[in-house]
Amino acid sequence: MTETASDGRVVEIANPRGRARAVLVCEHASPYIPPEYKSLGISETGRYAHAVWDPGAEWLARAVSDRLDAPLALSRVSRLVHDCNRPAGSTAACPEKVERIVVPGNRGLTEIDRQARANAVYHPFHQAVAGVLAEKGRSAALVTVHSFSPTWHGKARSCEIGLLHDADDSLARAMMAAASLSDRVELNQPYSAADGVTHTLARYSDRVQASVMIEVRNDLLTDQQGVDGVAETITGLLLAAVNQEATLQ
Amino acid sequence: MTETASDGRVVEIANPRGRARAVLVCEHASPYIPPEYKSLGISETGRYAHAVWDPGAEWLARAVSDRLDAPLALSRVSRLVHDCNRPAGSTAACPEKVERIVVPGNRGLTEIDRQARANAVYHPFHQAVAGVLAEKGRSAALVTVHSFSPTWHGKARSCEIGLLHDADDSLARAMMAAASLSDRVELNQPYSAADGVTHTLARYSDRVQASVMIEVRNDLLTDQQGVDGVAETITGLLLAAVNQEATLQ
Repeated sequence: MTETASDGRVVEIANPRGRARAVLVCEHASPYIPPEYKSLGISETGRYAHAVWDPGAEWLARAVSDRLDAPLALSRVSRLVHDCNRPAGSTAACPEKVERIVVPGNRGLTEIDRQARANAVYHPFHQAVAGVLAEKGRSAALVTVHSFSPTWHGKARSCEIGLLHDADDSLARAMMAAASLSDRVELNQPYSAADGVTHTLARYSDRVQASVMIEVRNDLLTDQQGVDGVAETITGLLLAAVNQEATLQ
Repeated sequence: MTETASDGRVVEIANPRGRARAVLVCEHASPYIPPEYKSLGISETGRYAHAVWDPGAEWLARAVSDRLDAPLALSRVSRLVHDCNRPAGSTAACPEKVERIVVPGNRGLTEIDRQARANAVYHPFHQAVAGVLAEKGRSAALVTVHSFSPTWHGKARSCEIGLLHDADDSLARAMMAAASLSDRVELNQPYSAADGVTHTLARYSDRVQASVMIEVRNDLLTDQQGVDGVAETITGLLLAAVNQEATLQ
């Protein structure tokens, strides 16, 4: 065994030969913080908190990737080192605080520090995503997969699955149209592009046919049966949207 | 989608027809807290803390199960509801505090409350484990898979992989003998049977040929490559121990 769990690769492309036109992206898949960042000073209690990663999102994204036969890009580094769903080198990409969780290792970073993090994490990640999208061509549909915490500043969130869009809302609306009431799917919940969370969608908007960001409440993703249920719902909505609008598969 | 992620089953047996003589058990696989327990009052920050589950342990256990072709019993409920590696109905099974994490929902439980939790979680889990072991017969080797946090009360733990035994130390010692220095494996670290952590091993000691508890530092289990590396090490040690002592496969 080596000293660290990682081989230094910051991105994994799962199912790279997947034949679906959907390309899945999971920017917050991993809680891994490379040792040189010394856990960013986060306490052991908060080490696996939602601020560090999206619990369950990788599991869900792999399940949808299997069902759709779609390529999947997974970040292998915690969003707190540099968030791949925020502009490169921005302060939002290396937050000093998320909800109530303070990130000592992100305090007082300079522009140069943040650009170094972007070079280490963000740019290689998006280079890999761009490569997968380039192989698919302009008919690709970009689907980002996230999870959110059931409470925020003490308030419960009733939303189970949110479909968020950036400028182009066609795919999200087609999925909403396909959803039944029992699916518990909501548009632009528990937050929306106005909150600055659709960076990846915006970044590739001119290279894909359609895009959507999927947000799932993380208490639905803690066991295989929960993950499978949500994966079935999402796969069904994506395929139904396709029949209406575009061809994902 | 249903209201909750779980179908109420508290245990999953993966690879039930696995042909290895090893039977894997992962008592702390899941962070799932059924909704009736209202998150046990744990803050969102602590919702995925090491007190709630063993991060990475399920991932690792499945990887070892694949390599050995071994059945694997996974608990699907958080250890904080009722720890399946502590005596049924004991106060240790429903702790009010773990390291610095307070568990409000476990405060002031009566004996009757704890027995109700044991009936809901512990007994069905161990009934399933006992069933798998019964199918294997007395030549089975019981291997429990856990993860531990890199720090404890602020002190770093240098141990990477611990091999813990209960009364019978033969399998743990055979694995130690097979380990190379680079494997970073230690006997009875970062804690041992004296700390009350080998309940499952003790429970089945008269029904199996040998047993061992494997503890891996959870920062080594945050990505596929890390998990694969540890799984290779553990599989190699188990198979090597077998050639010396018993036949696991």
